Amino acid sequence: MNASMEMLDGAVKQNEEKILEELAVLCRQPSISAQAVGIEETAQLTASMLRKRGFDTQILPTNGFPVVYAERKGISDRTLLFYNHYDVQPPEPLDLWTTPPFEPEIREGKMFARGVSDDKGHFMARLAAIDSFLALEKELPCTIKFLLEGEEEIGSVNLGAFIRENKELLAADGCIWESGGVDENDIPEQQAGMRGICYVELVARTAGQDAHSGLGGSIFPNAAWRLVWALNTLKDQNERIQIAGFYDKVVPASDRDMELLADLPDNAPALKEGYGLDGFLLGLEGGVEFQRRAIFEPTCTICGLTAGYQGPGSKTVLPAEARAKIDFRLVPDMRPEDVLEQLRTHLDAHGFADIKIHFLGGNPAGRTPIDNPFLELVVQTAEEVYGVPQRIVPMSGGSGPNYHFLEVLHIPVAMAGIGYPGENIHAPDEHIRLEDLYKGIQHTIRIIRAFAEQ
Amino acid sequence: MNASMEMLDGAVKQNEEKILEELAVLCRQPSISAQAVGIEETAQLTASMLRKRGFDTQILPTNGFPVVYAERKGISDRTLLFYNHYDVQPPEPLDLWTTPPFEPEIREGKMFARGVSDDKGHFMARLAAIDSFLALEKELPCTIKFLLEGEEEIGSVNLGAFIRENKELLAADGCIWESGGVDENDIPEQQAGMRGICYVELVARTAGQDAHSGLGGSIFPNAAWRLVWALNTLKDQNERIQIAGFYDKVVPASDRDMELLADLPDNAPALKEGYGLDGFLLGLEGGVEFQRRAIFEPTCTICGLTAGYQGPGSKTVLPAEARAKIDFRLVPDMRPEDVLEQLRTHLDAHGFADIKIHFLGGNPAGRTPIDNPFLELVVQTAEEVYGVPQRIVPMSGGSGPNYHFLEVLHIPVAMAGIGYPGENIHAPDEHIRLEDLYKGIQHTIRIIRAFAEQ
Repeated sequence: MNASMEMLDGAVKQNEEKILEELAVLCRQPSISAQAVGIEETAQLTASMLRKRGFDTQILPTNGFPVVYAERKGISDRTLLFYNHYDVQPPEPLDLWTTPPFEPEIREGKMFARGVSDDKGHFMARLAAIDSFLALEKELPCTIKFLLEGEEEIGSVNLGAFIRENKELLAADGCIWESGGVDENDIPEQQAGMRGICYVELVARTAGQDAHSGLGGSIFPNAAWRLVWALNTLKDQNERIQIAGFYDKVVPASDRDMELLADLPDNAPALKEGYGLDGFLLGLEGGVEFQRRAIFEPTCTICGLTAGYQGPGSKTVLPAEARAKIDFRLVPDMRPEDVLEQLRTHLDAHGFADIKIHFLGGNPAGRTPIDNPFLELVVQTAEEVYGVPQRIVPMSGGSGPNYHFLEVLHIPVAMAGIGYPGENIHAPDEHIRLEDLYKGIQHTIRIIRAFAEQ
Repeated sequence: MNASMEMLDGAVKQNEEKILEELAVLCRQPSISAQAVGIEETAQLTASMLRKRGFDTQILPTNGFPVVYAERKGISDRTLLFYNHYDVQPPEPLDLWTTPPFEPEIREGKMFARGVSDDKGHFMARLAAIDSFLALEKELPCTIKFLLEGEEEIGSVNLGAFIRENKELLAADGCIWESGGVDENDIPEQQAGMRGICYVELVARTAGQDAHSGLGGSIFPNAAWRLVWALNTLKDQNERIQIAGFYDKVVPASDRDMELLADLPDNAPALKEGYGLDGFLLGLEGGVEFQRRAIFEPTCTICGLTAGYQGPGSKTVLPAEARAKIDFRLVPDMRPEDVLEQLRTHLDAHGFADIKIHFLGGNPAGRTPIDNPFLELVVQTAEEVYGVPQRIVPMSGGSGPNYHFLEVLHIPVAMAGIGYPGENIHAPDEHIRLEDLYKGIQHTIRIIRAFAEQ
């Protein structure tokens, strides 16, 4: 017999301390994919967390870091897939953390640690929901599968190939995404899609070694100058990307998208305040065009620049090498392989054939149709936990490999998460609010129950 | 009675071991002005080296790092001033040094250490020459003064003011510069002037903190982009600096300069090979225009770029701050204060009023007239040591504060040094050849003798 929601929620409450302790153990384990730190250890640790819950668990190789795959049969013939990742962003700059990034600490109802929200807390929320069913019903209402990857923070470089090669293994009727949460007014959100990404590093190299700038300044090529000139050709000061063909496949926001955007709360003042901005690009101050642009506009963001001497004071050096990290956010129906080709053609055409492009990962955008029944189920089950159903946002400005789930596995994807706008993911003092964690667990319980019966 | 040159040279030979040991002690002491490391200690150490040779020695304050001033009376009423500096360039990148930068080591007739050529070996060569006179004649042929500064490697920020305030103290009839040496064929060179410099850091700041590039990419200003766009306006790809008024005061090379340049050996192939260049700027391949450009053309060199994430792999961050270090090399009659003002006006006019300019040091170019008798003395006394007189190069591409000596103190300046083209100054594995050190000492002995009698 099915346990009541009250009983299931009660089991979560009883488990509180164990949940936080298990999450802290996971957060104590660094797993920085960009720096290849702690990957194998974290794959083993997450696999053991699944095994002790009776999941058939395998650590499967990819061309990069391994995937943790797990499966446990349930009562109904429907299969729910949880997508999570065990890797985290680099913790730098370390001196801006209040407590060390890999020493989780609870302060004022929040847990602080690198990865506690993105994505270890989300993984823990799924496990805690499962624990309640297993405690009270001894089995799962439906079959549950887990796919944990170790390369989400470096662009899920190998996940697409892994999914294409494991379609049968990963077959499911719905997929709960690794992220999600509430807005600044604690309204839960359903971001029904994600922008794609194409992340590259441009490398200019003009000499075998650095030179004294007094010697070479007038006669030697300078890698930093070549990089600056090349970058300048990519985007103009009106934020228009100048790469030929870049916008060709862009699908604009639909009328329904614009309606949903118009219903969104005005988050511009909070963003301005929170990030210490003087203003937004192009003079925008909020409104539907602001919302549209934040999501439906592809980008070319310089994420990092490095060349020559960067320490205190002056050093008269002429750099032999200069590098820029660039992320392009893609909207439907742009494809990373097109951007790469267009970028190469652009650089060659503008006299920068010498500048190398290193592809560091990417995938196209993916969207779940707003009227999809699975999406609707996730939206509606939120009401019992949050007091209101999820507010649908047509797409997230961020990226993730949902494209492969949507377009290769043909599974609808929906979000149900434990994040909130102040969580500082990808930044120092990343944290979760414990109340968001508990709500996320309760929502997951309701999703599993309703999904099993759908 | 005057000791013979043979006896004076003999005293140097006898002292060999002590000279190298004293130089090693000095090089073991870090003195990195850009990083404010070891400054006071090195001022004290160099002062003690002068005091033990009977010099009245003072450590005099400036608005930055102190000046070491020393004086010892001699027989003739003429006064020779040695200008040197006790600071060195930063040693980074450390991993490219064969042995640690502040652990001097002699290998294959060379001494390796940060600062061993620039400028501690030069200072040691002056002292060793003085030691020979004191050993054999008990007093100096002429009055000798030393001015050692601690800010040469950061643009001699406070030396101009110090010199203006101490004209009487520093009065002299000739000044031997801190640097110099032989070319790739071991021909001694007289660089009868130096380009000036204006070193700045540009800082773009667009937010209080970094943001996730998925969140802010389409709507937040990006400091790295603003810096790139601003830099791009400074110089075009034909190497023409676009700052209004920048070239207004440029004095072109004279006919005599061009004759001297035409006599220079073709160093283009050696530079190309040594620095691993595919070619030089503007398709130059050597010849008199190559030589002219290397020296008589002002520059705008990006010495460093820094923004956002620079580690391995990818991080999807939108940087709040971006910085560029830039050095402008100045030819007569350009002035750093003009360049600063023109740069500010340029940035404002191009929409970059938000970009801050930090002035990190500078001074105008300075030239000694090629027919000056003191210069001629230094050129001719080289012959007995090197087999040929110095070859006159009208100006050096590098910079130094010789302007203050020439135009404020009205002292002719000439070079006599221990460097050679392979010495790696400002780079890993900086070194001197010991034979160059001994020749430099012998040349200094002859300069002192001839100068006292001039």
